[in-house]
Amino acid sequence: MAYRAPVADILFALDAAGFAAAREDGVYGDLDAETVAAVIGQAGAFAAEVLEPLAKAGDRQGARFADGKVTTPPGWADAYRRWREAGWNGTLASEDHGGQGLPLSVWAALTELWHEGSIAFGLGPMLTQGALEALEAHASEELKATYLAKLVSGEWMATMNLTEPQAGSDLALLRSRAERADDGTYRLFGQKIYITYGEHDWAENIVHLVLARLPDAPAGTRGISLFLVPKILPSGERNDVACVGIEEKLGIHASPTCTMAYGDAGGAVGWLVGEEHRGLACMFTMMNNARLGVGLQGVAAAEGATQGAQAFAQERRQGRAEGHDGAAPIAAHPDVRRMLLTMRALTAAARAICFRAAVELDRGRLNDDAAAERRGSLLIPIAKAFGTDVGCEVASLGIQVHGGMGYVEETGAARYLRDARITPIYEGTNGIQAIDLVARKLPLGGGETVRSVILSLRDTVRRVAEANDPGFGATAARLAEAVDALEHATLWLTGAARTQAETLAGATPYLRLFALAAGGAGLAEEALAGLRAEDRATGRVALARFFAENLAVAASGLARTVTEGAGALEGEAVDAALGA
Amino acid sequence: MAYRAPVADILFALDAAGFAAAREDGVYGDLDAETVAAVIGQAGAFAAEVLEPLAKAGDRQGARFADGKVTTPPGWADAYRRWREAGWNGTLASEDHGGQGLPLSVWAALTELWHEGSIAFGLGPMLTQGALEALEAHASEELKATYLAKLVSGEWMATMNLTEPQAGSDLALLRSRAERADDGTYRLFGQKIYITYGEHDWAENIVHLVLARLPDAPAGTRGISLFLVPKILPSGERNDVACVGIEEKLGIHASPTCTMAYGDAGGAVGWLVGEEHRGLACMFTMMNNARLGVGLQGVAAAEGATQGAQAFAQERRQGRAEGHDGAAPIAAHPDVRRMLLTMRALTAAARAICFRAAVELDRGRLNDDAAAERRGSLLIPIAKAFGTDVGCEVASLGIQVHGGMGYVEETGAARYLRDARITPIYEGTNGIQAIDLVARKLPLGGGETVRSVILSLRDTVRRVAEANDPGFGATAARLAEAVDALEHATLWLTGAARTQAETLAGATPYLRLFALAAGGAGLAEEALAGLRAEDRATGRVALARFFAENLAVAASGLARTVTEGAGALEGEAVDAALGA
Repeated sequence: MAYRAPVADILFALDAAGFAAAREDGVYGDLDAETVAAVIGQAGAFAAEVLEPLAKAGDRQGARFADGKVTTPPGWADAYRRWREAGWNGTLASEDHGGQGLPLSVWAALTELWHEGSIAFGLGPMLTQGALEALEAHASEELKATYLAKLVSGEWMATMNLTEPQAGSDLALLRSRAERADDGTYRLFGQKIYITYGEHDWAENIVHLVLARLPDAPAGTRGISLFLVPKILPSGERNDVACVGIEEKLGIHASPTCTMAYGDAGGAVGWLVGEEHRGLACMFTMMNNARLGVGLQGVAAAEGATQGAQAFAQERRQGRAEGHDGAAPIAAHPDVRRMLLTMRALTAAARAICFRAAVELDRGRLNDDAAAERRGSLLIPIAKAFGTDVGCEVASLGIQVHGGMGYVEETGAARYLRDARITPIYEGTNGIQAIDLVARKLPLGGGETVRSVILSLRDTVRRVAEANDPGFGATAARLAEAVDALEHATLWLTGAARTQAETLAGATPYLRLFALAAGGAGLAEEALAGLRAEDRATGRVALARFFAENLAVAASGLARTVTEGAGALEGEAVDAALGA
Repeated sequence: MAYRAPVADILFALDAAGFAAAREDGVYGDLDAETVAAVIGQAGAFAAEVLEPLAKAGDRQGARFADGKVTTPPGWADAYRRWREAGWNGTLASEDHGGQGLPLSVWAALTELWHEGSIAFGLGPMLTQGALEALEAHASEELKATYLAKLVSGEWMATMNLTEPQAGSDLALLRSRAERADDGTYRLFGQKIYITYGEHDWAENIVHLVLARLPDAPAGTRGISLFLVPKILPSGERNDVACVGIEEKLGIHASPTCTMAYGDAGGAVGWLVGEEHRGLACMFTMMNNARLGVGLQGVAAAEGATQGAQAFAQERRQGRAEGHDGAAPIAAHPDVRRMLLTMRALTAAARAICFRAAVELDRGRLNDDAAAERRGSLLIPIAKAFGTDVGCEVASLGIQVHGGMGYVEETGAARYLRDARITPIYEGTNGIQAIDLVARKLPLGGGETVRSVILSLRDTVRRVAEANDPGFGATAARLAEAVDALEHATLWLTGAARTQAETLAGATPYLRLFALAAGGAGLAEEALAGLRAEDRATGRVALARFFAENLAVAASGLARTVTEGAGALEGEAVDAALGA
């Protein structure tokens, strides 16, 4: 089946998520809707015509490692060259550094499209973007002068080096070390693992951002510094950094996941970014955008899987159904319709949450609106975790819709699941996102941030009820119950009597509950916008209704898990059940 | 990590699922508990010592196809030889044909263990077992004399040939044809796909059971006949059947999935099994057992994934937690505990349902208890679909617990998901199981069958309440609500006013709802048995509580989806949402 870039859906979802309102409020200056539509349309064409056709062969061939060199599959380096020459690498970077300075919400739409083309492809530029942000915010003017322009153009690429074998989610355990040299530079030593695009054949230089400890660093995360370590030094010499192997993974095969060795020949030359011992603060700079990007990778996998399943279900004929002579397309069977609607509804809900987070962050940054910034920050862990969980769930349903053919790699359905399965893990596991939500984000603004988000969900529900459109069925009632459940769980979690263990125990079901309420409201907003535009034919009302009546109804059970389930997680009997 | 065969858990679960009571009722004649424990213990040892160590290399190397021949990975043919020489192939076959005539419940326990060793391995013998049952029930005495003994010993193996490219779930679309020959045999022509172990190097002869149409066959499923087509004819000549290729799949790589060509050189010689045009009835003979076996493949994947994740979570240290100096094992973090408990609880619940179905079918067959037989038949689609869904869900959680390491194939966590992902598809997709449940099984016994199952769940809940053990927390209350929700949804689905579309639309969420109630009750039965045995130290009460308070609470939302969600699946607006 041929992937079609969902440009119209994306533009519609973006506007319904608040982009249109923010534009009318002047948040985006003279950026007009036509320009945005043109940019997103061109990106969609590139994703569909250049990237997606490479995805299958890239998956089969994978990146290859030999003698310290990594070769990406045939055609990938050329696709990257075309992509950066078309100017796509610099969309988010500021105009001061040669970028286009587009808002985060437009970048989010583009990010979804690149990853629909191929997650294995999009991942490399996405990490370069993260490094760019850290350098823009924290690097010295000298470093900026040397590196920013080439990273913005994409002529050079960049990586993030955090993980070590003993230190995955827990950066306090990092052991890589840095020593001060006499000339103000540093020498780095240590091994980093799981370095995405740590070595490849796309760019002549690769700029590694590396977390390491100085000799006098305090223990824990307050003793970590951030260094810029280029593969090729400004002198043109090769630095003392090498890729010593790549991983064999479940998916994203075309994306090399490298083990990087620093300092095996005397020390890799590095430059400090930001202040000594303050490396983690520099990483936090880029965290919101990176997590949003990963959430959109999940949306992208879900969109691709949904398109594939829809096309297959219209084509494939099995069994009888009302209104069909002979064998009916399987899309006519209620159980298959349930799967397809679940796929489409979850995909659109996750997209709506991602885009809303982006618009709030835009309002925060471009309009100096601190409350909006906090709302965006609150939504980010939901966008990341729900987007990526949805990516896996929808991809798995996509296999199921295909039946036996879904299990055969030739069809491509299985690749979506294999590629998506990393997204709930990297850039902070989804468990860590949930903890971020309950422990750091719920207290934002003294609790006012979450209250204002819940109020806005209630406002959506009220407008659905007032629309009084029969197509909505019980949408307003079911969404109201979901928002009630969310409020109840929120009050419980933020109550003074809560222990930390109780809060953390409920984090994951709470995040899912939040996503069902916010995703359902997001689809309802799209449906309301569709009704305003007299755009009945697109099924937006039907999709909002399906989500509310069939998926959001899980909310009350999730609220119970949050408020009553923690006790079942602790104690010796539980240890026994876990075989400890 | 090393797999440990969960022999004690299996024996305990079997007894709690009714095996002990049936034994006391004399259902199993002189088969005593010690014999059963010895057989299951030996099987566990074989699975852990011979099969599981082959699984990883077998996955990487996969079955190979060249020049019409299929080669399984190094060591696999030898492992099969040892397995059959130890007598494991004939456990379920009747003693009349050289089998051991063990009951289905014991076979179920053994089946779980073989698939914990390797699903790719266990699948071959499981299909031979299915063919054996069809032949025992329907073949002529002459065919039985020629084939049964060697199939029971495992010297020969057998396959099931149903699927054709245009006919997957819908056998009415089959086109393979058979012609009558003058000597009473038949000549078969056609291509079959997805034939598991259709060709291999384990046995000198492979007996194919093939569905095909005679020239005068009525259209549809009432015109399909079943034929026995051996690879090697009784004369010693090679029959006109050939493997023309194998599939590249997401998982079960060591298991060859073959495209089989019949009659390319004039017609494959076949013998009729059962009556002409009645082939599907012969297939139904083996369906309960085959579906139970596939459900247990899901349980096996879940058990393996859970063991792996538990071991990793005890070992891996990241972050701080109460009661631990320095970095704590991740098993100490509430969010990880939630994942591990979810894995363990779902696995045990699925196992309890599978075993209960087996015991009911044993009572039906061995005790001529038609009501029990119907209860077993009712539980079979739940055992198959819930078992296999749990296999995939738990395997995916297992990847998540491992973090980045879970995505790297070396760890083995990803293999459980890849292998498990076929199980919701084959032997009747889980959608078909759900339809079987609501359309064929709920009406059994005029509705008395489902009523009696629900009554027995209520009885379990009552005994949990009466046990009055503080470790149960809110188990009785939450399970009671789940059973209420199940009863409500059952009454709705079986109501006179229901349209077929409404019934089918609710089938999948109803099956899940049933599984949550029955699985929760199954774990509660194990907990009660543990309390009777003063076996507090095993965590069974804690596991039942976790399931009830954290997972069974989804029941009310699922009931709502069943009773109120169907309207959102139909109509033109929904077609639009599905892009039709």
